[in-house]
Amino acid sequence: MKIAIDAMGGDNAPEEIVHGAMKAALDFNDIEITLVGNEDEIRKYLTSNDDRIQVLHTNEMILGTDEPVRAVRRKKQASMVLAAQLVADGKADACISAGNTGALMAAGLFVVGRIEGIERPALAPTLPTIGGEGFLLLDVGANVDAKPEHLTQYALMGAIYAEKVRGVKNPRVGLLNIGTEEKKGSELTKDTFTKLQQADINFIGNVEARDLLNGVADVVVTDGFTGNMVLKTIEGTAMSLFKMLKTAMTSNLKSKLAAAVLKPDLKELKGKMDYSEYGGAALFGLKAPVIKAHGSSDRNALYSAVKQTRIMVEHEVAEKVKASLEIQS
Amino acid sequence: MKIAIDAMGGDNAPEEIVHGAMKAALDFNDIEITLVGNEDEIRKYLTSNDDRIQVLHTNEMILGTDEPVRAVRRKKQASMVLAAQLVADGKADACISAGNTGALMAAGLFVVGRIEGIERPALAPTLPTIGGEGFLLLDVGANVDAKPEHLTQYALMGAIYAEKVRGVKNPRVGLLNIGTEEKKGSELTKDTFTKLQQADINFIGNVEARDLLNGVADVVVTDGFTGNMVLKTIEGTAMSLFKMLKTAMTSNLKSKLAAAVLKPDLKELKGKMDYSEYGGAALFGLKAPVIKAHGSSDRNALYSAVKQTRIMVEHEVAEKVKASLEIQS
Repeated sequence: MKIAIDAMGGDNAPEEIVHGAMKAALDFNDIEITLVGNEDEIRKYLTSNDDRIQVLHTNEMILGTDEPVRAVRRKKQASMVLAAQLVADGKADACISAGNTGALMAAGLFVVGRIEGIERPALAPTLPTIGGEGFLLLDVGANVDAKPEHLTQYALMGAIYAEKVRGVKNPRVGLLNIGTEEKKGSELTKDTFTKLQQADINFIGNVEARDLLNGVADVVVTDGFTGNMVLKTIEGTAMSLFKMLKTAMTSNLKSKLAAAVLKPDLKELKGKMDYSEYGGAALFGLKAPVIKAHGSSDRNALYSAVKQTRIMVEHEVAEKVKASLEIQS
Repeated sequence: MKIAIDAMGGDNAPEEIVHGAMKAALDFNDIEITLVGNEDEIRKYLTSNDDRIQVLHTNEMILGTDEPVRAVRRKKQASMVLAAQLVADGKADACISAGNTGALMAAGLFVVGRIEGIERPALAPTLPTIGGEGFLLLDVGANVDAKPEHLTQYALMGAIYAEKVRGVKNPRVGLLNIGTEEKKGSELTKDTFTKLQQADINFIGNVEARDLLNGVADVVVTDGFTGNMVLKTIEGTAMSLFKMLKTAMTSNLKSKLAAAVLKPDLKELKGKMDYSEYGGAALFGLKAPVIKAHGSSDRNALYSAVKQTRIMVEHEVAEKVKASLEIQS
């Protein structure tokens, strides 16, 4: 299987991207990787002689500050766009980037293309839970003005992913809402509720934001605006609390000593909240897997994203989404 | 000034409600309190002889499980409804309840009534920030399908509250959005952005959910659906992290000893995240202050809610909102 990787995307590119790719090639002997980007820069870190890692040179790249849609349309030789182009041309089975999220969504939509019948793709990260099992949240921002039909498709795609890629049997699908009662919520959630009841999934009803990290569902569907808010609120709250914790633990010598004892436990806790362990956010509804690795990805995060992509390709997730749409319609 | 308190609302009613009311009456000699509810139950805890605390007896009460609108319409003698009725009849200047949130919003709307010109009331709690200054978030669920005009009115009301009640000079008003750039977001936020630019407030543009606890703005406006999600996500994330922290700190004897040393610092940290310190959530846009104290309010939380209500009445917040609407129109 062939995976195209945008070597120039993310805060730690290309060094950590190249290292992550080498680590993945070492561990998985069924993958071939194409690193897309500035060859001189890439070769600085590419110490492997493995001929399963190739480099596709380009000077152009999309920046974090670029306006997404315009950048994808104008910078046709950008590393991210070329990686997506490899997928569109059948030269790669999937692509990965840690770069500009909006641009990757645009490249997925315009270059790789939607599965026929999918109205809107969804961006879906797997988020941590207290128990460690994690849950899939979709959409977190691919489509901010969503309709009930979109959310119903997210539910179907999410259930397939949870089952095939994450190995969850009969995954519990919940609708994110302001209360658990059936009649609660906005026009959007009320209409979606009815549609999800009729869908061929294990729909467990409305779920509340305060129960997400307790693992209340395996797949949580919501519109892209709300999903983005929830994702960023979890990140922001966790970051703020860790910051406050650090201040509290260094307030005097006694606290510092006690904190030193607790350091391994706290590190483990922080690791549990670390998204990079779960791979990247998958763009669902495209003809082939397009994976957004976290912008601050180090080699381990990139490695996790490759691992996840490999399972998506192996289990033919895109094909299964397509087939399930044909059954539903 | 006269404050009506629903003595039967909340998890710890009537005991903690009565104690909170007595504490407030002791500290503030300019207030008179009417405790509404079952007189026998109330008298069990009412040890004060202060004639500024009166009891209005009723046997009926609204439960947490009651359907809000129906409960307010049918249980006309319920303690919460009678407290609101005292305000409507001019026998109280404001009312407080720790009971069913939806029912209190309905009682506010149907019994106390909207300020003329305010299309939708908003529920607005003050949330904690790392620096301790806090920020006002509105709306968190009074109005789930909001329009740009509603959000613009929230901004005006929030700015008045922040300035008059919380003493923030020229409060920074932010629009909660998925990015800080002007063109970002849903149809709702894009339209609201333009309206807020024209409003007579210190509008600082879009703010992101991940920056809220850093104190990025003094007043943050959003639709009730999103606000409710953000509020519950902050609560849920903080609760989950504290739970994980507790587990990490009791994993072995060494950690337990270290944790004991850190206990006062951690308690202070938890206190900082405790909403009860900031009083209750105010219902904005009504003819008089209606305050929702947290459902799990103890005597201190109820005391804080009375303190906050007193300032709202003293500074004539409702009157100022009314006056500002007349200037804008």
